[in-house]
Amino acid sequence: MSFQFKIESASGSTRTGRLLTPHGDVETPVFMPVGTLASVKGISQDLLEELGVQILLGNTYHLYLRPGIEQVRKLGGLHRFMSWPRAILTDSGGFQVFSLNHLRKVSEEGVTFRSHLDGSEHFFSPERAMEAQIGLGADIIMAFDECTEYPADRERARSSMEMTLRWAERSRKHFEDHKHEVPWTTSHVGTAALGCPASEAREQVKPSSGDREDVSERWGTSELRSADSRGRLSLRDSGATQALFGIVQGGMDRALRKESAERTIAIGFDGYAIGGLSVGEPRSLTREIVEATIEHLPAGQPRYLMGVGTPDEIVEYANLGIDMMDCVLPTRAARHGLLFTSEGKISIKQARYAGDPGPLDPNCNCRVCTRYSRAYLRHLYASNEVLAQVLNTTHNLSFYLDTMRGVRHSIALGKGARFLAGERSRRKP
Amino acid sequence: MSFQFKIESASGSTRTGRLLTPHGDVETPVFMPVGTLASVKGISQDLLEELGVQILLGNTYHLYLRPGIEQVRKLGGLHRFMSWPRAILTDSGGFQVFSLNHLRKVSEEGVTFRSHLDGSEHFFSPERAMEAQIGLGADIIMAFDECTEYPADRERARSSMEMTLRWAERSRKHFEDHKHEVPWTTSHVGTAALGCPASEAREQVKPSSGDREDVSERWGTSELRSADSRGRLSLRDSGATQALFGIVQGGMDRALRKESAERTIAIGFDGYAIGGLSVGEPRSLTREIVEATIEHLPAGQPRYLMGVGTPDEIVEYANLGIDMMDCVLPTRAARHGLLFTSEGKISIKQARYAGDPGPLDPNCNCRVCTRYSRAYLRHLYASNEVLAQVLNTTHNLSFYLDTMRGVRHSIALGKGARFLAGERSRRKP
Repeated sequence: MSFQFKIESASGSTRTGRLLTPHGDVETPVFMPVGTLASVKGISQDLLEELGVQILLGNTYHLYLRPGIEQVRKLGGLHRFMSWPRAILTDSGGFQVFSLNHLRKVSEEGVTFRSHLDGSEHFFSPERAMEAQIGLGADIIMAFDECTEYPADRERARSSMEMTLRWAERSRKHFEDHKHEVPWTTSHVGTAALGCPASEAREQVKPSSGDREDVSERWGTSELRSADSRGRLSLRDSGATQALFGIVQGGMDRALRKESAERTIAIGFDGYAIGGLSVGEPRSLTREIVEATIEHLPAGQPRYLMGVGTPDEIVEYANLGIDMMDCVLPTRAARHGLLFTSEGKISIKQARYAGDPGPLDPNCNCRVCTRYSRAYLRHLYASNEVLAQVLNTTHNLSFYLDTMRGVRHSIALGKGARFLAGERSRRKP
Repeated sequence: MSFQFKIESASGSTRTGRLLTPHGDVETPVFMPVGTLASVKGISQDLLEELGVQILLGNTYHLYLRPGIEQVRKLGGLHRFMSWPRAILTDSGGFQVFSLNHLRKVSEEGVTFRSHLDGSEHFFSPERAMEAQIGLGADIIMAFDECTEYPADRERARSSMEMTLRWAERSRKHFEDHKHEVPWTTSHVGTAALGCPASEAREQVKPSSGDREDVSERWGTSELRSADSRGRLSLRDSGATQALFGIVQGGMDRALRKESAERTIAIGFDGYAIGGLSVGEPRSLTREIVEATIEHLPAGQPRYLMGVGTPDEIVEYANLGIDMMDCVLPTRAARHGLLFTSEGKISIKQARYAGDPGPLDPNCNCRVCTRYSRAYLRHLYASNEVLAQVLNTTHNLSFYLDTMRGVRHSIALGKGARFLAGERSRRKP
């Protein structure tokens, strides 16, 4: 068994759980920071570990263009390429193909698109998307889907949903036929999982079965212990493979969402994502469709809501029973000087902060809030210093991860995720 | 006594020593990374501490324009503004006024120049430069000088040197009259020295005499101990002031350099810098002038060679008896993908590294070389990822600081600084 999901506490639809992946456990509900090009922009992997990031999201479309799937595969997969020993999820590339390419051509077979970098022509299909994601070697990969645009009429939403279902079947079939080709099951497993120095990894290019015992032999006991204490050795068994998630579409139509859920479940996946939301619709509608979809998803499998949201929203969706979320918001907003705090949003570029000696967020214990003043952060942003991006991103990620830690704690105490928002506001000075 | 220099070992002209500053000791020979706008571009202060940076250089010209001297002064000085508890040196602004301003007007009184940011007109003089540097509150500040351009004929070099000498006298006089206005002797001292969280600092805006006992009362013993273990409490005595260094000019003329040295020493400073080098002249000439100048500097005071150099050069100058150096090279080169290693320079942008799983420098133990491959660093650079700048700068700084640690160790063993270069090449695999 390569992948498991265990529910650890539940109250109503809300629950906490644990994803067991070939690269370590992930406590849910979890927020997954986005590392588009094998990097969370500006943040080193050391710091991501320190912040408590359990699982990263990589974008297949971007990695396919740079540095290329074959390059990553030859270097042992994405974990080893970026020296990230914990879990990774990759998207299928479908969303970027649709959102970044206005000249795309969609057919039953797949999508022809042009690179946003150099205009070169490429083709993605369910089979190609699986091949790419197997080459990258994330722990969780996604079926190739069509993200239905908003607004879309019922007929368009249905035909798009039907295509996504056919592509889901093809994704599943290709995955089953090729899942043992994931780079970390055929070579380099120990080194990637251990996050070992590249200098040592270089001497270990011989293929290995990659199980724990094999790693132990090569590394010796003391390295193993040290690796364990850093949470860097978690490959559970030889022959571990990736997990494949299906994606529910159906636009903003509750009946189509129900049908999409049921037919996707009938194909059979390790988990289920809700796609096609946060594409321009009002937030009340997002919430309505999430609720209407969740009720048709199997309780015992992970539920992943793609591409959301604000701190308040991720608490709200966790409360509805969502287990996994990802969003560029904390990292992208940070680059624009928009910071999330326990007292609300702050636009650090404003002149009012130029002389403010106080911390960004008096209730935050991150490296930024315990060391730097708003005046300094404002100066860095106003001066276009790269450290502004580094520190702003560190804080926003810390705020999101703290929020989810609070949510998990609150759910485990039986108070529900929503309790936290009240807790937090009561902590105001 | 606010500032002392102790020589700890010497062999020929080469020596190791210790600068005792109000913000901690600095082992020499030392390389000072450049933090132009109160930030070493892309690197957090936590990481600078971890890398072993003992003293940072700040640029008065840039800080004068952004965020402005008065802003920094009101916030307790540069140490507290940027939350850097260790030593800082500021330049006088003269070099930038001359190098960034083609429309400047130089008179006996000072220099009128236009901001490189918005074209606004400003005026710097010895008095203004002292006022600015006292407001910033660095531990070591520099007399206002004219950096003689290269090439310059003898007459021009002499008249420029004479002006620098008159400005040195005026700098010295203004400093003596105003040195007790440094922000950390009149307020906030403990908090800046302790690098305390801004949230706590905010509650301590009342003026204090700032001596160790006062800090202790406010912080309690446990915080003090913790601060000590982090090396963050080093303000030696109440009423501590800054140290002022003079600058020797004289172009590429050995006789003028001798005269400049002798007359600058006659004015009397805490240390002596060699300015006007590394301005376009051949390296052999730089070395010749450094040697010709050093022999006229007092052995018991620190010698600072401004604006050099490559790793080989800083070893060479340490060997000649230079105690302090600064240069933008390691940080600026990093941003252009040029990396210094024990095996020579590497341009990480080259396609040959795209599939290279080895470490950047197999003999380096920095966070970058022990975790990431050349292939990953090349990918980050080629993809214009901000993490490229962060990791490249981390490595280059680490390489420079390691080089200087090796130099100090080698000198202390009586082997001279130059020994290290041979040691290092013998470590090649």
